Amino acid sequence: MQKGLLLVVSGASGTGKGTVCKRLLMEISTLFYSISATTRQPRTGETDGVEYFFITVEQFQQWIAEEKFLEYAEVYGNLYGTPIHKVEERLNRGEDVLLEIDIQGALNVMKKRPDGVYIFLLPPSLEELSNRIKGRGSESPETFARRFNSAKNEIAIGKKYQYVVLNDTVEAAVEQIKSIIAAERCKVNRNENLFENLLTP
Amino acid sequence: MQKGLLLVVSGASGTGKGTVCKRLLMEISTLFYSISATTRQPRTGETDGVEYFFITVEQFQQWIAEEKFLEYAEVYGNLYGTPIHKVEERLNRGEDVLLEIDIQGALNVMKKRPDGVYIFLLPPSLEELSNRIKGRGSESPETFARRFNSAKNEIAIGKKYQYVVLNDTVEAAVEQIKSIIAAERCKVNRNENLFENLLTP
Repeated sequence: MQKGLLLVVSGASGTGKGTVCKRLLMEISTLFYSISATTRQPRTGETDGVEYFFITVEQFQQWIAEEKFLEYAEVYGNLYGTPIHKVEERLNRGEDVLLEIDIQGALNVMKKRPDGVYIFLLPPSLEELSNRIKGRGSESPETFARRFNSAKNEIAIGKKYQYVVLNDTVEAAVEQIKSIIAAERCKVNRNENLFENLLTP
Repeated sequence: MQKGLLLVVSGASGTGKGTVCKRLLMEISTLFYSISATTRQPRTGETDGVEYFFITVEQFQQWIAEEKFLEYAEVYGNLYGTPIHKVEERLNRGEDVLLEIDIQGALNVMKKRPDGVYIFLLPPSLEELSNRIKGRGSESPETFARRFNSAKNEIAIGKKYQYVVLNDTVEAAVEQIKSIIAAERCKVNRNENLFENLLTP
């Protein structure tokens, strides 16, 4: 049986990765969303155990000590981590797992999991990126400027990924990611069993 | 502008690559089929300049001397070659080019063009492969046995390709190849211009 795909989707702040990932999960019912843990405060409408596990700095440090993270990183003064629990289990059962993580986190996972599928979302333009960061409404002018400059720097890091998807419309971005999933399943190194089944009588 | 994709589709004898490629060309009107040259005799229904350029051994050797081939190889005593003419031109215009070539030829192209997309078609089973080789009706028992054994050996070479597609039904195989095309267009190394356009004011 083919192992599941470890799909890592990230992008600069304000690129709309949350919306794209939500749509992907709606369209691919078998895709398992790996919920990250964070020490940041929940935004309006966010629920513990749904968007994130919202935990304290103390809890976070304990999880680090217990090696419960595939990766973790500090972003804008908050800690974010990917609990490894269940990820490997699902992959071994042939199920695909989606990690929606920030760029630092993705770079860390890349080192540990070269067999992952790394997708970088780009905003259609810098104006659009600026609008989206402003649109969140939760940022002060200083936070906005810091996020916008940081986002521009982050975009350049996207070149280290395997795939880049322009998030012009959510529908088009989701279609491209679905093609990437289908294509990755055809990679020769994920299909050694196909050759064996065919050639072993 | 993004360069076109050099799509190389091959597979063991009797895998049905001709049918799959024909369907691909019907469904993707912009895909350019690079017609190979061969010294073998046309089969019933084949037309010079459509399936192949049917040329003499002397002409073939002259084309070799004039460096008109991207690759050439001898298969079952006949010469087959991929004329380079127009391929580069189309790729530079951003058009995708399809090469439907035998395994030896594909391995030669791989060395010269690591940026190509190499897709290996597998038959659904050895029985099916045997039926398809028999079904051609043009082979003597000796030719059949030689082709069948050779096809089994060729299948193992498929592991050197990037992608493998099981040709169970033509429709499913064509869908997988279309996903591979879409995914390859998202590869970061084919999209450096996207980053530049976004980051250069």
